[in-house]
Amino acid sequence: MTDLKNLADAVFRPRAIALLGATPDQKKNNSRAQRVLKKNGYKGQIVPINPGRAEIMGDTAYPDIRAAPGPIDHAFIMVPAAAVPDAIAGCVEKGVKVATIYSAGFAEIGAEGRAMQEAFTETARKGGLRLIGPNCLGLVNVTDGVPITNNAAVEAEEIKAGSIGVASQSGSMMGALLSRAMARGHRFSKLVSVGNECDVGVGEVAQLLVEDEATRCVLLFMETLRDADKLAAAAARAHQLGKPIIAYKLGRSDLGRRIAVSHTGAMVGADELAATFFRENGILRVETLDALVEAPRLVLGRSTPKGRRVSIITGTGGGAAMIVDRLGLYGDEVVGPTPAMQERLGAQGIHLSDSPLIDLPMGGGAGQYTSVLKEMIASDGNDAVVAVLGSTARLRPTQVNENILDIYDGSKPIAVFCAPQADEALRICDEADVAGFRTPESCADALHAFLNWRAPVPRGVGAPDALAKASALLKAAPASTLDESEAVAVFEALGIEGSGARIVNSPDEALGMEGPVAVKILSPDILHKTDAGLVKLGVVGEAAIRDAVAAMLARAKEHFPEARIRGVLVAPMHKGLAEVILGFRRDPEVGPIVMLGMGGVLAELRKSFCVRLAPVTVETAAEMIAELPELRMLTGFRNLPLGDVAALAKAIHAISLLAVTDGPTVQEAEINPLFIRHQGQGVVAVDGLISL
Amino acid sequence: MTDLKNLADAVFRPRAIALLGATPDQKKNNSRAQRVLKKNGYKGQIVPINPGRAEIMGDTAYPDIRAAPGPIDHAFIMVPAAAVPDAIAGCVEKGVKVATIYSAGFAEIGAEGRAMQEAFTETARKGGLRLIGPNCLGLVNVTDGVPITNNAAVEAEEIKAGSIGVASQSGSMMGALLSRAMARGHRFSKLVSVGNECDVGVGEVAQLLVEDEATRCVLLFMETLRDADKLAAAAARAHQLGKPIIAYKLGRSDLGRRIAVSHTGAMVGADELAATFFRENGILRVETLDALVEAPRLVLGRSTPKGRRVSIITGTGGGAAMIVDRLGLYGDEVVGPTPAMQERLGAQGIHLSDSPLIDLPMGGGAGQYTSVLKEMIASDGNDAVVAVLGSTARLRPTQVNENILDIYDGSKPIAVFCAPQADEALRICDEADVAGFRTPESCADALHAFLNWRAPVPRGVGAPDALAKASALLKAAPASTLDESEAVAVFEALGIEGSGARIVNSPDEALGMEGPVAVKILSPDILHKTDAGLVKLGVVGEAAIRDAVAAMLARAKEHFPEARIRGVLVAPMHKGLAEVILGFRRDPEVGPIVMLGMGGVLAELRKSFCVRLAPVTVETAAEMIAELPELRMLTGFRNLPLGDVAALAKAIHAISLLAVTDGPTVQEAEINPLFIRHQGQGVVAVDGLISL
Repeated sequence: MTDLKNLADAVFRPRAIALLGATPDQKKNNSRAQRVLKKNGYKGQIVPINPGRAEIMGDTAYPDIRAAPGPIDHAFIMVPAAAVPDAIAGCVEKGVKVATIYSAGFAEIGAEGRAMQEAFTETARKGGLRLIGPNCLGLVNVTDGVPITNNAAVEAEEIKAGSIGVASQSGSMMGALLSRAMARGHRFSKLVSVGNECDVGVGEVAQLLVEDEATRCVLLFMETLRDADKLAAAAARAHQLGKPIIAYKLGRSDLGRRIAVSHTGAMVGADELAATFFRENGILRVETLDALVEAPRLVLGRSTPKGRRVSIITGTGGGAAMIVDRLGLYGDEVVGPTPAMQERLGAQGIHLSDSPLIDLPMGGGAGQYTSVLKEMIASDGNDAVVAVLGSTARLRPTQVNENILDIYDGSKPIAVFCAPQADEALRICDEADVAGFRTPESCADALHAFLNWRAPVPRGVGAPDALAKASALLKAAPASTLDESEAVAVFEALGIEGSGARIVNSPDEALGMEGPVAVKILSPDILHKTDAGLVKLGVVGEAAIRDAVAAMLARAKEHFPEARIRGVLVAPMHKGLAEVILGFRRDPEVGPIVMLGMGGVLAELRKSFCVRLAPVTVETAAEMIAELPELRMLTGFRNLPLGDVAALAKAIHAISLLAVTDGPTVQEAEINPLFIRHQGQGVVAVDGLISL
Repeated sequence: MTDLKNLADAVFRPRAIALLGATPDQKKNNSRAQRVLKKNGYKGQIVPINPGRAEIMGDTAYPDIRAAPGPIDHAFIMVPAAAVPDAIAGCVEKGVKVATIYSAGFAEIGAEGRAMQEAFTETARKGGLRLIGPNCLGLVNVTDGVPITNNAAVEAEEIKAGSIGVASQSGSMMGALLSRAMARGHRFSKLVSVGNECDVGVGEVAQLLVEDEATRCVLLFMETLRDADKLAAAAARAHQLGKPIIAYKLGRSDLGRRIAVSHTGAMVGADELAATFFRENGILRVETLDALVEAPRLVLGRSTPKGRRVSIITGTGGGAAMIVDRLGLYGDEVVGPTPAMQERLGAQGIHLSDSPLIDLPMGGGAGQYTSVLKEMIASDGNDAVVAVLGSTARLRPTQVNENILDIYDGSKPIAVFCAPQADEALRICDEADVAGFRTPESCADALHAFLNWRAPVPRGVGAPDALAKASALLKAAPASTLDESEAVAVFEALGIEGSGARIVNSPDEALGMEGPVAVKILSPDILHKTDAGLVKLGVVGEAAIRDAVAAMLARAKEHFPEARIRGVLVAPMHKGLAEVILGFRRDPEVGPIVMLGMGGVLAELRKSFCVRLAPVTVETAAEMIAELPELRMLTGFRNLPLGDVAALAKAIHAISLLAVTDGPTVQEAEINPLFIRHQGQGVVAVDGLISL
């Protein structure tokens, strides 16, 4: 926490700022940082760095950061890419705390730039210098009037101080978002463009913003996720402090993510993972740009709702139906008036049907509209209220005051959607800090994000002895890829029943096995064992098993003389009511995840799986099972026999514990297939792999 | 066509308009119709009808439409609901051609209102009077200045004449849409609110608009579909005339549509059907309200594209990525520069990578931006071009002129998306009639609608003799629900192989059957035959079959003494490589449809199906097969045997012909299961039903 506090001070409230690449030429971009600092009345010391100048805009300039007098908290680096490494080295020598690197031409342009970036990041890390960027637009502490940026938008527009903090991975979108939000009367605390995130990422900025006193709501514009741990920590803290985090994330379609080696790896799209990450960490995710601007007023100061129920009052059936329709697609509920509400209103002569939409023009009847709206806001039967305005919003916008704003007590989120073009009605809502929506899509998007906002999900905890045993096996692994039997041994240590397979090196070692068994060569060098005739299924009887072992060893020797042979796996053949795949993976973006997927050929044709952040509790694992429609066949469907889904839940929990074992990091693991037996008879891991 | 022409004249260009319920009280809504007619300089005769007035606003008033002098082309009815039937009767007596009923309180309020509506609709039908409404806001012929409405918006705002025609089932949304479109500088030809559509529906209005000379593009705001035939006809004609129809339709989620009796009936959601209807008829469908306003400029004057390829030039990576992301989710393609383009631009010193996004600031380099954009517009490698604007759109909006508008030759659709708040840049685009987009969602939505816009799909045609045979069987059907064997006989007539089942009434009639067979009681009165022990599967050998028949007849007699027994079905048991369900249904909205779904238990757990408008060609049927991922197992997957998908396609085509058989209308039909055998061995319909 002290670290975060120190970082926040250096980032947002530096006592002295060095501007590397400052220039007196007012036409140049690089002159802007100094100009906007002055314009905003920055109280600290401005130290322009420029080898050819003794003074710039009235501030004494120095040829090199090393030559600057006194301590420097924050350096803003605008020099050409080639000069950045020396600038960083200079900052380290000078003892600068944070450098924000505006300069571009690094990881974003390819391998060479990436190497340069990695090198100066290492210099900074060793020297205790924190970095923001490179390839970023800088940041603005609006609260205290400290802009550290040469973004034209920041100079051109007056950014008013308020409670919204923003972090953006796209520099240009930070400006775009800012302009859209300002047009809707939003006020800001801090804005940070994180660029390539060579050090400080969006997660750590979120940590700073969540702890920031002036900030009450955090908006994130994200393209990827490089510091998921920190973002998760920020989200947990945000939940404690009651500060919603709202994220818009790109990468919803699936390009460039086809690198995973296991079946389950390929099953899960990047966006599925991001959605899981946001949901499980209690971050509200919106999918429309408008909602990123319009949702804050809906959720600011709120806590997570109990249900997913919305009540709607509308002056236009079609206008409300556009929202209902989308909420229906999302699976949220639109609820009509409760009987108690109908009764109370009935006593006032207002008779409502059970219809989920309350269609009542604003102008109609003396006070009917406000009476109904008051009841809706006070009701326990919903989690949010929507007021849809028809032509009134355009023709008599001030009626919004009388009919909504004057009676709104703020006790529950209210969304006001204007069906016609109604800039003035929206402005009235904006000024009253009530959530107004310009499109039905944004309104439904923001509502959905709010209704599905939940506290961070508890993580699973493993038994210490099981974890210790599994960790020991992982430490002892002879190679970075564990073979079938080594992997199954780890799974067994975590509490998943193995297949009872034996590794033999001669027919005699198979003594006493009766089958049916599967016989399979063990070799890290032979990839397509079935095609090579080195797998034999359904072998029955001791003699036949011995013969199969002998034949397999001979065949391997003949056809793959170079291959390392680790023996022959003789595995009892199991049957189950169903066959699933369990997967574990450390995702480069969201970190450890666990997956449950259907096995078998049909499942390959139509993927069916679900995913969670690992480790999961047994309760979360049970939720996963309920999400796969095919597994309903194990829980009482059409008189089919019941399967041991309780054992399956424990197995999912167990494999997810690979996220927290000691020793070498498990990158990826898979049990395929895992057979689910009859209720009470458990599950069995037949085959698996683990990559460290 | 003459009918349509006459209707159009009476609807849009009446020589005399009667206003039933006209009033001199300027504060009343009902005074507005007359006021706006006068204000717009209507040249024909205005005939106010009001029993208490001799003159209103300078026009001679009459107590009853029957008393009005001269012919009346169009009556606008604003009287209370209870007075509407007499008003309609009066219009019929007077020989009025069209009545537009503003009055509400009919089908939209429940059964009583519906009965009233049906009664006066029948009066009108018999009397040759066409009706628009009731519960509608009327219409506006903007082209000729003829408003027939008392909508406040029409009086408050100046609607400029242009080429966009609008039909809306929601009155309030017509106003909302109008205000939004006017804010974006759109101009209109005709606007029609169709209300409850007791007679003239949105499809017939679309026919009028498509034929209307001033109209070049038609927008539809729809809640349901009551005259699909006419909308399909309008769409076909629109395609001939090169006038795009763009629809926004509610009902995307699934409430209130769970009435269908068969399995396949329940499979298909209302929106799936609407999407199919729009796609197959060449109607562009958008799913965001903004796109309904912003798409027209993208498609007006265009014809259907060849592919689904978009090229994007952008000044903001994040801004473009928001669009790319959505297009990716839709499955559209974002294509980088062609090699030829790279070469030509390279010769000018502009070096582009293969990246699908061309990231080039507008300001950057002398003329680079325009050079690249010109190449994109001229390229055969894409079907549409997107220009994404960053801060330039806000800070230097007129640069849109120099960089885009001045060089745009209109040869290909171009979409301009402004990432920041950039009202002025959008206005510049609007004025130039170039499609500007305010949100990435609307931009992607409109692009997707354009890219997937195709000519209407050809309908399947059946062999006359097969149709005649099937029609004869349908005419001969003893009840409105055909039993299994009667249904299969119809399917056989259409060319689908049946199971070879025999109906027997005594054990002796089963002589010579060897099995394995399924034995099943035939009775319209016994519903759950399996539960009642009246189905026996896998019976082998003549003696066993005879026994089973005898036992089943006895059991039925004992347990269901009242039931009508039509015999016992003895059906050879078939095997197939896969089991599907074929369905046919007359949907109340879109008309006849054909469905293909996977059969079996797993398919019940996770629905897998696809749907088309019926009848389909064999080619369309083959597309349906390709859409079900599970059926890939029949076309060469993992060495699995090949199935007879050609025979399946013919069977889909065959069942879809139920749309065009003579005799009693087939409401619903299903073959479940249909077994697909090995390639060359056909498919077999094992069981089925038909409802007339």
